[in-house]
Amino acid sequence: LRVFGQPHVTIDLGPDSQSVIVIDQTLLPGSFEKKSLRTVAEAADAIRSMVVRGAPLIGVTAAFGVWLALRDDPSDAALGAALELLGATRPTAVNLAWALTRARRELLDVAPPVRARAALALALRMANEDAAACEAIGRHGAALLRRRFEELGSPETFHVLTHCNAGWLATVDWGTALAPVYRLHDEGVPTHVWVDETRPRNQGLLTQWELAQHGVPCTLIVDNAGGLLMQRGQVHACIVGADRIAANGDVCNKVGTYLKALAARDAGVPFYVAAPTSTFDLGVASGGSIPIEERSPREITPDASIGAYNPAFDVTPCRLVDAIVTERGICAAHTDSIERHLKPS
Amino acid sequence: LRVFGQPHVTIDLGPDSQSVIVIDQTLLPGSFEKKSLRTVAEAADAIRSMVVRGAPLIGVTAAFGVWLALRDDPSDAALGAALELLGATRPTAVNLAWALTRARRELLDVAPPVRARAALALALRMANEDAAACEAIGRHGAALLRRRFEELGSPETFHVLTHCNAGWLATVDWGTALAPVYRLHDEGVPTHVWVDETRPRNQGLLTQWELAQHGVPCTLIVDNAGGLLMQRGQVHACIVGADRIAANGDVCNKVGTYLKALAARDAGVPFYVAAPTSTFDLGVASGGSIPIEERSPREITPDASIGAYNPAFDVTPCRLVDAIVTERGICAAHTDSIERHLKPS
Repeated sequence: LRVFGQPHVTIDLGPDSQSVIVIDQTLLPGSFEKKSLRTVAEAADAIRSMVVRGAPLIGVTAAFGVWLALRDDPSDAALGAALELLGATRPTAVNLAWALTRARRELLDVAPPVRARAALALALRMANEDAAACEAIGRHGAALLRRRFEELGSPETFHVLTHCNAGWLATVDWGTALAPVYRLHDEGVPTHVWVDETRPRNQGLLTQWELAQHGVPCTLIVDNAGGLLMQRGQVHACIVGADRIAANGDVCNKVGTYLKALAARDAGVPFYVAAPTSTFDLGVASGGSIPIEERSPREITPDASIGAYNPAFDVTPCRLVDAIVTERGICAAHTDSIERHLKPS
Repeated sequence: LRVFGQPHVTIDLGPDSQSVIVIDQTLLPGSFEKKSLRTVAEAADAIRSMVVRGAPLIGVTAAFGVWLALRDDPSDAALGAALELLGATRPTAVNLAWALTRARRELLDVAPPVRARAALALALRMANEDAAACEAIGRHGAALLRRRFEELGSPETFHVLTHCNAGWLATVDWGTALAPVYRLHDEGVPTHVWVDETRPRNQGLLTQWELAQHGVPCTLIVDNAGGLLMQRGQVHACIVGADRIAANGDVCNKVGTYLKALAARDAGVPFYVAAPTSTFDLGVASGGSIPIEERSPREITPDASIGAYNPAFDVTPCRLVDAIVTERGICAAHTDSIERHLKPS
């Protein structure tokens, strides 16, 4: 999408074709700067330190990281080491494991002399696929939101609440949860977004920033405020992204998502999840088995004398999820529906 | 209670008997400083700017503010103006209106020449009553928490979650929600407190600070994390204060309380509210009629270019409240139970 009127994507091959260029998201919204990644170690660092973040973008960054590794050393050993290094950066988002599994499968049988080229082709393909998936999520999700808007009698303003950042900054382009919002706005539905601040990393500031770049009206709120807004009827729909969806439809996403899903259910507000199909992990029966990343207490307070605990994700039980939007369409948060949805067409 | 080993209260008559001394809570936990209030305008400013905060302490500060006004001018007009000025500082906590109504009732019939003296006596009496009420809340609440602890088979650590600051900093002494925690800890129950950060004003840092001063183990978490902890069985009870309780038992408290009550109910964790009986407002049938203070968006972000919305309280429906602890004992969050509980004995 556009930043200060210019088109940008969150990750791309550098103009010298020797590096990967990403937006340094740790500097946003204060400063919009690109950063160049030249080695697999730099790619792993970028994921770990959240220079890049968002489940889909983490997956694509890892694919580019494999390329950077193989460019320096195309051996089986180097491939294995790169997969291990990148796989250990962040535990919760399954898109990372998905991207690395795919890289292993597609690259292990490629002869080392042409492996780097194949890895680059794969990374670029995955980036394009991600953008296309998000564009399709936008299409399906906008139809879902528009139905809700019309069921409500087309109110003067259609209020959507989102948690964390699942916009184009979390993907290669478009976003997951925000793709339907952008589309709805572009189609002329008078949409306004309540943006959860999303402590401790304040990804809500990223969401506020990218919505403002696109001209979508939005208002920042603290994570505590969404329940009150829903009680008062000031939220018409919630939509969030996902880092991993279990086989039964339990959704693991940024910590605090579960609290909003509870409030939405209590107030009769539909709660939607938008994510590419690569976010499903059928190897995990239910959300309780998903590893929850614990990050540094210093993300909460810089004061090292204060004991703090900082889990980064939580699990929203499938019973609280009204629909899952993927690039294939809409799916219920239920084992059978998910199985059908993921069946090769 | 004690700060750096020395006894302190949050508000007191100055040593010169000409001023009111409060702890400047806007400087905590970084710096522990007292501040002197010399006029009713300074008292009103202290309430508005949250130099003093917490429903019970706001009420007592207002009573001292009336004294400061009458010391300068004991006329009926000055009394009326002081009540109006102080009453307009913060709209949600009913303890403020309660204290001012009481001041009007007890002072209007006092002859102006001795009014200031009567106002000071009233303020000191209210301060003592508040400390005594909190001490009693501690006793009743500790018994309630101990029952829960024993029902669970006396776990190695008893984990309590609280939101905002309802400790001694929010009252004259002891606190409301934290009074039972202090007592339980002093009685030897191995208690640990999960402290919600409580954005946007971070009153959780006050809670963390005062618990640490007393030696109660505690851990700071972001407001988003409590749902996950409850899902995992890492919270054995929630206890919070209240700014106003409606006749039906709906509880108005710091924004975000409702989300924790939803999570507690979903996980089968008891949710307790601790407040003096002055927090009940029988003139309000249910929570929907309680005015919710909206504070400056700049409390959320200093960046004036970002649109933000900052409601300071929300309403937890009575159905989510397992018990209300007051200085009189335990009461159900239900019209009949509340009526019986408040009946003059």
